[in-house]
Amino acid sequence: MLDKKYLLPKDAVKLILENVKFRSLSSERVSLEEAYDRVTYDDIVAPEDLPGFLRSTVDGFALKASDTFGARESSPAYINVKGDIPMGIIPGFTISQGECASIATGGMLPEGADAVVMIEHVNIISQDLIEVLKSVSPWENVIFKDEDIKKGEIVIKAGKRLKPQDIGALAGLGITTVQVTRKPIVSIILTGDEIVPHTEKALPGQVRDVNSFTLSGLSIKAGAVPLKMGILRDVYEEIKVAVEKAFENSDVVLITGGTSAGLKDMTAKVIDELGSPGVLFHGASIKPGKPIIGGVCRGKPVFGLPGHPVAVYICFELFVRPVIEQMLGLKERKVKRFLKAKMARNLHSQAGREDFIRVFLEEKDGQLWAVPLLSKSGLIMSLVKADGIVYIPSDLIGLQEGEEVLVEIID
Amino acid sequence: MLDKKYLLPKDAVKLILENVKFRSLSSERVSLEEAYDRVTYDDIVAPEDLPGFLRSTVDGFALKASDTFGARESSPAYINVKGDIPMGIIPGFTISQGECASIATGGMLPEGADAVVMIEHVNIISQDLIEVLKSVSPWENVIFKDEDIKKGEIVIKAGKRLKPQDIGALAGLGITTVQVTRKPIVSIILTGDEIVPHTEKALPGQVRDVNSFTLSGLSIKAGAVPLKMGILRDVYEEIKVAVEKAFENSDVVLITGGTSAGLKDMTAKVIDELGSPGVLFHGASIKPGKPIIGGVCRGKPVFGLPGHPVAVYICFELFVRPVIEQMLGLKERKVKRFLKAKMARNLHSQAGREDFIRVFLEEKDGQLWAVPLLSKSGLIMSLVKADGIVYIPSDLIGLQEGEEVLVEIID
Repeated sequence: MLDKKYLLPKDAVKLILENVKFRSLSSERVSLEEAYDRVTYDDIVAPEDLPGFLRSTVDGFALKASDTFGARESSPAYINVKGDIPMGIIPGFTISQGECASIATGGMLPEGADAVVMIEHVNIISQDLIEVLKSVSPWENVIFKDEDIKKGEIVIKAGKRLKPQDIGALAGLGITTVQVTRKPIVSIILTGDEIVPHTEKALPGQVRDVNSFTLSGLSIKAGAVPLKMGILRDVYEEIKVAVEKAFENSDVVLITGGTSAGLKDMTAKVIDELGSPGVLFHGASIKPGKPIIGGVCRGKPVFGLPGHPVAVYICFELFVRPVIEQMLGLKERKVKRFLKAKMARNLHSQAGREDFIRVFLEEKDGQLWAVPLLSKSGLIMSLVKADGIVYIPSDLIGLQEGEEVLVEIID
Repeated sequence: MLDKKYLLPKDAVKLILENVKFRSLSSERVSLEEAYDRVTYDDIVAPEDLPGFLRSTVDGFALKASDTFGARESSPAYINVKGDIPMGIIPGFTISQGECASIATGGMLPEGADAVVMIEHVNIISQDLIEVLKSVSPWENVIFKDEDIKKGEIVIKAGKRLKPQDIGALAGLGITTVQVTRKPIVSIILTGDEIVPHTEKALPGQVRDVNSFTLSGLSIKAGAVPLKMGILRDVYEEIKVAVEKAFENSDVVLITGGTSAGLKDMTAKVIDELGSPGVLFHGASIKPGKPIIGGVCRGKPVFGLPGHPVAVYICFELFVRPVIEQMLGLKERKVKRFLKAKMARNLHSQAGREDFIRVFLEEKDGQLWAVPLLSKSGLIMSLVKADGIVYIPSDLIGLQEGEEVLVEIID
């Protein structure tokens, strides 16, 4: 166990990531229908050329480009129409000098043709004869057989979360299944004598389970599968048994406080006893979320999260999600949603600590204002009402009213 | 049928939205476990106060604030410890003048106590006596019984897509089910003699189905359920029968071209025959996607999408998604992901037309560059490789190399 000096979040995350193997999860094969939003495990290589044949990109007439050279409105080229090219089959004839065939967008060029003149640049004289009013160059208005995708080319790299259009491209190549990283299982253990299930009446002194629902949704959003392990009393042996079970059945273990005084130390002790390296950091320089515990045992990450609903949310986003993404092997540029706004009031912050302020957005006279939701961090409604988060870095001591800030929009 | 003047996308979308009833879908009741990412149908009202009791926000001692008035390090207040307050139950004693009880964060204050002094501001003299080194005000370090949520307050408004933290809040209130808008069913009809299923070998002249996969994923992302209706030949009667069946079984109908010459008119004719008002616009001033058809029959929106994979993507995002969101009753500020970049080369655009340019992002010497993927719009790879879209409004005729642009990141 390392010392208890409070780390900045990025250093704390680095410490965890170094101790979790890069992409520690195995893979599985899924059909294209199940592949949306999954993360590719390997590079995917094109098994064939696409489109696979010389294809028209316009409606018009396939011909030899040289027959149109010099053609213009005042001096059109006259070309004989040999026939129609039906969609979806190999044309049954070849094009010789002075011949053309009508073709639709996507149609296959016949043998001998090397360009398509657009219908807009043609006068149809009869069923057998057209006037071409504009010349075309060789290979104009066509796609080569390997112009979209070349056989052997990497279509999609490993570590990409598959978008709808990626799956479309795989379908186009005749690929029916994809090797994807298995979804990590995130077990969620709640501790606290005061917590009752959401289906029960909360007597005075009791509160219902909020965090297992927030953490389940956040896990799903991150690409994982939540596994609720129930609500435990603040009893060391019971927590230890549950955490051991969680380690067997899942890839990431989350233990949420328990807000009773001695519990944070219990969580740290349980983690240390489970295997090395155990607890990697205990506390981080953030608000809310300061008492977070992070560790790795037997190669699996484990977190002790504070029990406050807001701290749970912030800690998941800062610490747990990056770990899940590394385990998935995700290699993508991360782009968050931001909106520019002005602070609606002064905000103080402690130097050396990163603050995450929930705000809602208000429009007044065309200006967007970020109004801080300054609540005690136990209050659930401050997260429900929040449109976004304003981040105050550790080297600032606050923000001024009217100052421009970037609000990270909460999905 | 209106005239064929090409509309700008926003006007075209407006025309469709006016003809689709606002929130045309019915609702259903789902459990909290199924509620993530669903859209609320009604306002949700708090059935009780939260937390429901006077609760400590810190670890410390519950007492009467007046007993600490004037206390400081040089002159502490001495208070008798009456006992411990266990978590989760009503304290079994009351606090009188000169008395306190140890309490943990989240614990319930006993009768008589009106504040909590933090453990950090206390010297524990014995099991029965503490020194308080700092005064507290009445109601300091506590949450009132209705401070988080007040009974009867609207917790979540109708038309919100439920986030993980929203579901947490509902659980905290003991709400176990939510009324959500039914997911719209989007039927997807592919037409084209040249299209074969993705499981089949594509012979020369044939291409595999790309669009039903792209459109399925986009529908799921928008909160809908895709319903694939198969691949049809370019035969009027067959298309008409399939579209009628789609109208019976779904809420939104998408017909993707067919790239053969006469087909666009077929689609428009089928739509007009299905019911009024029928086709509302035929073509829009955009690139790619110009030949899009939009209409409403019997209150249901129907779109004829061009067959090009890239046009299909752009048209879905511009026209179909806003319609789905209105049907769902979604009322949310839309915030897209943007990154600032500089154009890596000049781009020309036609005045009066909105252009959507696929770009990939490249970092050079700390500067992000948007490199246009200038491909024929039939090419699938230009969407797979694209990191985002650069939008050129209709009043510009292009972008200069080095010009700063906002790249809308593709999810």
